[in-house]
Amino acid sequence: MEVNNKKPAVKVIPLGGLEQIGMNITAFEYEDSIIVVDCGLAFPEDDMLGIDLVIPDITYLKDNVDKVKGFLITHGHEDHIGALPYILKELPVPVYATKLTMGIIENKLVEHGIENLVRRKVVNFGQHINLGQFRVEFICTNHSIADAAAFAIYSPAGIIVHTGDFKVDYTPVYGDPIDLQRFAEIGKKGVLALMCDSTNAERPGFTPSESTVGSTFDKIFSEHPNTRLIIATFASNVDRVQQIINSADKYGRKVVVEGRSMVGIIETAQKLGYLKIPENTLIETERLKDYPDERTVIITTGSQGESMAALSRMASGTHRKISIKPRDTVIFSSHPIPGNEKAVSKVMNELYGHGADVIFQDTHVSGHACQEEIKLIYSLVQPKYAIPVHGEMRHLKAQARLAEGLGIDRKNIFVIQSGDVLSLSEDSASVVGKVPVGNIFVDGLGVGDVGNIVLRDRQHLAEDGIFIVVVAMDSGSGTVVSGPDVVSRGFVYVRESDELLDEAKEISAMVIDRCLDRGTGDWNKIKNAVREELGDFFWKKTKRRPMILPIIMEVGQ
Amino acid sequence: MEVNNKKPAVKVIPLGGLEQIGMNITAFEYEDSIIVVDCGLAFPEDDMLGIDLVIPDITYLKDNVDKVKGFLITHGHEDHIGALPYILKELPVPVYATKLTMGIIENKLVEHGIENLVRRKVVNFGQHINLGQFRVEFICTNHSIADAAAFAIYSPAGIIVHTGDFKVDYTPVYGDPIDLQRFAEIGKKGVLALMCDSTNAERPGFTPSESTVGSTFDKIFSEHPNTRLIIATFASNVDRVQQIINSADKYGRKVVVEGRSMVGIIETAQKLGYLKIPENTLIETERLKDYPDERTVIITTGSQGESMAALSRMASGTHRKISIKPRDTVIFSSHPIPGNEKAVSKVMNELYGHGADVIFQDTHVSGHACQEEIKLIYSLVQPKYAIPVHGEMRHLKAQARLAEGLGIDRKNIFVIQSGDVLSLSEDSASVVGKVPVGNIFVDGLGVGDVGNIVLRDRQHLAEDGIFIVVVAMDSGSGTVVSGPDVVSRGFVYVRESDELLDEAKEISAMVIDRCLDRGTGDWNKIKNAVREELGDFFWKKTKRRPMILPIIMEVGQ
Repeated sequence: MEVNNKKPAVKVIPLGGLEQIGMNITAFEYEDSIIVVDCGLAFPEDDMLGIDLVIPDITYLKDNVDKVKGFLITHGHEDHIGALPYILKELPVPVYATKLTMGIIENKLVEHGIENLVRRKVVNFGQHINLGQFRVEFICTNHSIADAAAFAIYSPAGIIVHTGDFKVDYTPVYGDPIDLQRFAEIGKKGVLALMCDSTNAERPGFTPSESTVGSTFDKIFSEHPNTRLIIATFASNVDRVQQIINSADKYGRKVVVEGRSMVGIIETAQKLGYLKIPENTLIETERLKDYPDERTVIITTGSQGESMAALSRMASGTHRKISIKPRDTVIFSSHPIPGNEKAVSKVMNELYGHGADVIFQDTHVSGHACQEEIKLIYSLVQPKYAIPVHGEMRHLKAQARLAEGLGIDRKNIFVIQSGDVLSLSEDSASVVGKVPVGNIFVDGLGVGDVGNIVLRDRQHLAEDGIFIVVVAMDSGSGTVVSGPDVVSRGFVYVRESDELLDEAKEISAMVIDRCLDRGTGDWNKIKNAVREELGDFFWKKTKRRPMILPIIMEVGQ
Repeated sequence: MEVNNKKPAVKVIPLGGLEQIGMNITAFEYEDSIIVVDCGLAFPEDDMLGIDLVIPDITYLKDNVDKVKGFLITHGHEDHIGALPYILKELPVPVYATKLTMGIIENKLVEHGIENLVRRKVVNFGQHINLGQFRVEFICTNHSIADAAAFAIYSPAGIIVHTGDFKVDYTPVYGDPIDLQRFAEIGKKGVLALMCDSTNAERPGFTPSESTVGSTFDKIFSEHPNTRLIIATFASNVDRVQQIINSADKYGRKVVVEGRSMVGIIETAQKLGYLKIPENTLIETERLKDYPDERTVIITTGSQGESMAALSRMASGTHRKISIKPRDTVIFSSHPIPGNEKAVSKVMNELYGHGADVIFQDTHVSGHACQEEIKLIYSLVQPKYAIPVHGEMRHLKAQARLAEGLGIDRKNIFVIQSGDVLSLSEDSASVVGKVPVGNIFVDGLGVGDVGNIVLRDRQHLAEDGIFIVVVAMDSGSGTVVSGPDVVSRGFVYVRESDELLDEAKEISAMVIDRCLDRGTGDWNKIKNAVREELGDFFWKKTKRRPMILPIIMEVGQ
């Protein structure tokens, strides 16, 4: 075959989002054009001590800054938009998103004081955006936040359909059901590759409609006419909030909203028309006392047991304005996200401890497609290549099995890793390279100044604490003029361990003397000897390995 | 009513086990007699940094050592026996348990070198033990470990039935089904109080029999004739291991056991007759290479994603003897215990990453009674008082609701806390006092030498690291002779933050000078001033709060 007969190839490069820690960001590259779908952050894993947020390493995009045409955002969740304020500072390219999504993004940019940094374009469903060699169509889908979009990415190599996070909801609370007809139409044209949400690929069946939760709320409201209701859910689930407000309106209750993030999103959603609140329904927290308990409902953050969220503070008795009362009924309209189970249980236990009743069954539906929905999308789109996205390895593999079950050739299914460069053409597809990817840690104001060394030190300190030996030495004579003194933190309870510390001090003195006697003037060697000898001593005595930090002060004559 | 007409009262004092962190230990007291049911440990919560184990504070028992007649153990799980080696050293009283339970306890005592410290008595089901004013009958139950017992505790105040951890298994793998007739018989005599396992009280229905898992294993073995099988389960679930061995025998596979704790329990169970292994079935790990993959099955620890367990090491590629191969089938015969979900997912992702297949559905049944079983026990025992045990507050409350639904008066249901002294008589019941309870931390060789101050320091160090300022001062003149020098660990990546550290050094020097200029000779005041000023500086610059540790060395003239 001649070289010039080769079909054009497009590159798909996930820069995050395919590992346990999911920051969604994927680059699509064709010749001089790169477009990027989503720009999410991740919350730190347990071993990322002291870290606030994790954002993706975008070295590859910065190295190709001239090609990058813009960010296309599927929906307004943190794992899809959260890194934008950090990344746009380094890569100020245009951002494209639907109206609510853009509203949420704008709040973030304002917070970071960079709202004037980049061009932003609100896109309607059905609209096409031309970006270099690419054209991108926004398609209506459903998710646990309104205005979620899938993308049909038209490239010279063919069409790639990217679902974003989605479910199939035939009766959504706001807006239209997912545009299945359009998925079918595009499928009919011939689709090169489908990148489909894998989050629920291990779950059989169909995810129920968001509107089923509304019926449950109505039932709970009608069955609890005499108690205050407190309902915790995700701040960004505007449809859920809408349904609580609907029930409140129906049953004549005033609504209080607690939790900074929820107040913010509700304001934005209301302003943009995504949330309809009947007049005189919302009241300030301070006015709760003006109404009997059975005439109020509190919507709150904290459904994941987050220690600083409003519900957790109510449960632990540290909320400034709301105390849990023995007859309160607290509803968790959420499932614990994996990893949060214990934190959620803790809050529930505390609520029960105050005498409240807790309801957590049938009060939530997922925002992600289960197996039958995934199969539906595959059957409408009928792609040549399947690239499962959004999920951990186990979820990607589960979708791969579904795709294989639908008749897609195993060699056309690509379970790839972040950083893989997947080249796709009508002829062939394969991983042709690897670009740098990774986690950038945000800690306080610092972005990237906490790396693996700092984290390793924090883990060491967390495990067994620190033991500091300070000695002052004469720079001229090389003799000890003061110390060694010892200080420990996080190692042992000092008052009970005086003897241990005294012994450690003696050992330090002995080691230093021995070094000096042998003529070892190299202070690093002295420090290493102290570290080693004390390490052995502590391990033998305590089976612990504190960080040992010898410090030598130089005192001139 | 006359005082001498008062009915005798027995005290029930849970010393642990009723909080999220569950070390089961409960004292029963009548006049000069105390008996203790179980003596468990707990594994540390996320915020107990560096802690290995948690054991209960038994101050109350030590203060009443003359009364304590012995420990009665329901079954051989860590949360019921794990603290014995530590507690018996301080309180060397006799231990009573069934045969397998005692075998597991003895292994622990041998490990701690205290097997000759206390008298131990193996008790059969149906046998009664006289302990001071109490008589205790061992009743056969079912659980996820063989030889589990419930207790009927006969006291002058009446009979208390304590279920231990239990389920109702009509077709157990080893031994007899739970002795429902005996529960009924005792119930007929009249029972003062029932203390019943609440773990699954939120779950409707009946827990399936352990033997159903055997059928699933047979199905998996028959459906995977061409791959190696690796099955992870709890080390102590001897019946589960038995069923894997049965399937292996049936399908002609050799069995390898991996994981120190599992090897230990299997040896004990086999020695005591609780596990029947056909000859030539078990092989050493080293001999795996002598058999084709499809003729072997590996039983392993690590079903909870424990980072040091055998399966986790295989998955991460750090197991010395076994590597995961692309065609391996790995079966999780377990559910993640709350809090372990992410760790389990991590291992699964790694296994999938090696190309293995993973099975985790329908391969496990619980060892605890669901709602219908709990109702059955209540209906047989028909207690006057209900005291839900074994579980977090949410589970205790769920059982309380079940008990109320069965017609037990709400005021006769006691959801109590560890440390509560619950006095029970035919006439009345109430919490009459509180005894000290708490968590004693085991860290390495230290028992109790890590307290809240050390933990708080570790948390602080884990969050933002440590910043140390050292200065040498002349004790006579009170002037600085060297420094201040600064060292940080776990705070910022130093090379990128030289400027920050230089500035911090300058600030420290300035603060010290200012103090000295003002004639402040009190070194503590100087240290506090440094701490405060640097704290403000770092917060402003980084929004972090490292531990700041000023050290002043005294240099004599």
